[in-house]
Amino acid sequence: MKLEMICTGEEVLAGQIIDTNAAWVANELMDQGIEMQHRITVGDRLNDLASAFIERSHHADVIIVNGGLGPTSDDLSAEAMAQAKGETLVENTEWRQRLETWFSNNNRPMPANNLKQAMLPESAIMVDNPVGTACGFRVKLNRAWLFFTPGVPSELKVMIKDQLLPFIEQEFGNSEPTKVTKMLTIGAGESWLAEQIQEINLPEGISLGYRSSAPYIEIKVFARGKTAINQLDKVCKQIKACLSDLIVTTNIPSLPQAIHEQLIQQQKTLALAESCTGGMIAEQLIALSGSSQYLQHAVVSYSNESKQALLNVNAATLEQFGAVSCQTAEEMAIGARQILDSDFALATSGIAGPSGGSEDKPIGTVAIALAHNNGVYSQLLQFPKRSRTIIRQLASAVAYDMLRRNLENKAVIVNYPSYIKRN
Amino acid sequence: MKLEMICTGEEVLAGQIIDTNAAWVANELMDQGIEMQHRITVGDRLNDLASAFIERSHHADVIIVNGGLGPTSDDLSAEAMAQAKGETLVENTEWRQRLETWFSNNNRPMPANNLKQAMLPESAIMVDNPVGTACGFRVKLNRAWLFFTPGVPSELKVMIKDQLLPFIEQEFGNSEPTKVTKMLTIGAGESWLAEQIQEINLPEGISLGYRSSAPYIEIKVFARGKTAINQLDKVCKQIKACLSDLIVTTNIPSLPQAIHEQLIQQQKTLALAESCTGGMIAEQLIALSGSSQYLQHAVVSYSNESKQALLNVNAATLEQFGAVSCQTAEEMAIGARQILDSDFALATSGIAGPSGGSEDKPIGTVAIALAHNNGVYSQLLQFPKRSRTIIRQLASAVAYDMLRRNLENKAVIVNYPSYIKRN
Repeated sequence: MKLEMICTGEEVLAGQIIDTNAAWVANELMDQGIEMQHRITVGDRLNDLASAFIERSHHADVIIVNGGLGPTSDDLSAEAMAQAKGETLVENTEWRQRLETWFSNNNRPMPANNLKQAMLPESAIMVDNPVGTACGFRVKLNRAWLFFTPGVPSELKVMIKDQLLPFIEQEFGNSEPTKVTKMLTIGAGESWLAEQIQEINLPEGISLGYRSSAPYIEIKVFARGKTAINQLDKVCKQIKACLSDLIVTTNIPSLPQAIHEQLIQQQKTLALAESCTGGMIAEQLIALSGSSQYLQHAVVSYSNESKQALLNVNAATLEQFGAVSCQTAEEMAIGARQILDSDFALATSGIAGPSGGSEDKPIGTVAIALAHNNGVYSQLLQFPKRSRTIIRQLASAVAYDMLRRNLENKAVIVNYPSYIKRN
Repeated sequence: MKLEMICTGEEVLAGQIIDTNAAWVANELMDQGIEMQHRITVGDRLNDLASAFIERSHHADVIIVNGGLGPTSDDLSAEAMAQAKGETLVENTEWRQRLETWFSNNNRPMPANNLKQAMLPESAIMVDNPVGTACGFRVKLNRAWLFFTPGVPSELKVMIKDQLLPFIEQEFGNSEPTKVTKMLTIGAGESWLAEQIQEINLPEGISLGYRSSAPYIEIKVFARGKTAINQLDKVCKQIKACLSDLIVTTNIPSLPQAIHEQLIQQQKTLALAESCTGGMIAEQLIALSGSSQYLQHAVVSYSNESKQALLNVNAATLEQFGAVSCQTAEEMAIGARQILDSDFALATSGIAGPSGGSEDKPIGTVAIALAHNNGVYSQLLQFPKRSRTIIRQLASAVAYDMLRRNLENKAVIVNYPSYIKRN
């Protein structure tokens, strides 16, 4: 089964929108064992669209067409498909009724141009969109089924999962069952990880993939077929044995998400004292609904004065060891924890660059501390000299990881091959 | 002149990387008045690449090919181009020497596989890459010049600006000069903005574009030709007259960047008290190098207890008016400002959802305050009921805007058509 995608829309072609739909679709299908083979991006021009449909219909079995199903004059996908197939557009009565119901349920009169969304090529088979006004449809042309999906990401996702995948299953049948385990790692590069794992003998049907999403690298373990699926857990265990401390989550999409779930589950509270990460840790947790259950406060103590005034850091500590030191980070964490007697507090203080480094403490040096009600842990790390943003992301990731390890009753401080431990 | 792009790389096709290069290139060329007409994304398969080169070479004058110039076995662009043209690969002596110099300057032996980067199709003309080891080149095939560029974004950008644009200028000549003014807006939708502006009579050669980048909408005013360029400022003034308060920056890429520059220039200090925005305001400012010059601290007071303990908010105020009220936001701002006697403090408190709304204060209700050393301003807004992230972005944007307006000696509180003012 050969799968391709045609993305439509002037704003996607002209770079006014970054095409995250294309990446999402390819990833989602890959998780089902289906490889994306080719992708075209076309603007809102009738002839360009029609010729792309015709040209690719000779090469693929399924072509996902994304976008151009809206009510405005630059939404041309249905008309272009009709032209490509030499058909006219006809009104789909079912969808027209759906549109009328949708608008009346929302107490709004239906604008006349929305009627356009019920006009499909004559031979089109309607594909349901339960979450929007754009009607999906599919048309057979030459070798290919062209499968038309809405540009709105939330509508697209529902249609791919609930309509396209079952359609492919039914049409191209007996595809082998697949299963994926995803592990998130920190602390080492892709080639280092690959080298550690390479001695594992992968059973037939099991393959590995890597996806870098700074500061994390995701390892995907992909099993195709029943025999392989039965061995998936065993292989994942072997990988975990090789990489032990570097794997920070399994089948949880992010480290903040893992912290979030564990703090809620264990009913623990958290306070933050961020200097170089500057609100990034708080931001990523507060982005998750429900974080008010555990996150009591965060102090972004960006100046020495604020470290003293808000976190009770000693002037002598700042003077003797400097702001970027284990001593200061520890006092920050302890001070942050004490304000509301939180169960935990994380603190960061470092040099994110691009200026401010010294020979003794170059750019990328960050002190990170975790305080709990019985004590405090800290470490001073030298991260690779990358961009300001990446250094801050790395510091946030290690802070989360210290808390995660504590919540899981593991040693809080471990070695990460890519981050140098300083005294 | 017809321009297209071919993006290569399995990781781009399979969605492991979101293709930001494609959007950047299209945007950059559009700013020069050159429209991207078509884009293909192909994986690392020799035949797929070669047939894409041949097929599109009949349709375009210039095809930017991105990626596949590295030293590893899946870097196939040069080989595929040679195949498409029926040529062999030959070593480019100049580039080989450049590689050798590059490695010896970095005190590293040159790995044998890097030699591959000097192997170009016979008829290729080398295109300089002063910032990396991947050699750019261009080849004429049928109607098109295929212009090969590196996948590394920083290398791509230099090559497009310093090599491709002058090449297009020279080859397709006398293209008219162009100039763009970009204005960032908040507070209204694209159709609302377009309606306000539509009465302006645009002189020939001046066109408008919109780019939505939540929570901002950018208006691009594009002038093509000397006469149009001379009228650009006048048109922008007319647009500003129509949209007055909604335009928050002109030719500055973001509102945090504008605040950052003005605070540094005016030598003012800032403190933050964030509840629903939860570190987002701090995060966006601290992402900019130099923010330590003005940002003294930020308190993410996510619980009522922390509002009292850290910001000195009265228990009675919380009790009587609730956390999401002008009264609480004002006390948060005043408390945050007083800690280190900052010149300004911004405070936010609101309901970002998806849970927590009430009939009186539905999801999207946010109180925002600005304190300075002579007083405090506040407003309670009802934002459109969108996602948690967008509501927090909207609240951050309005907070920045209140500060911006004060720094520019303008009325701090204005009407935004899309945000409902509450009492």
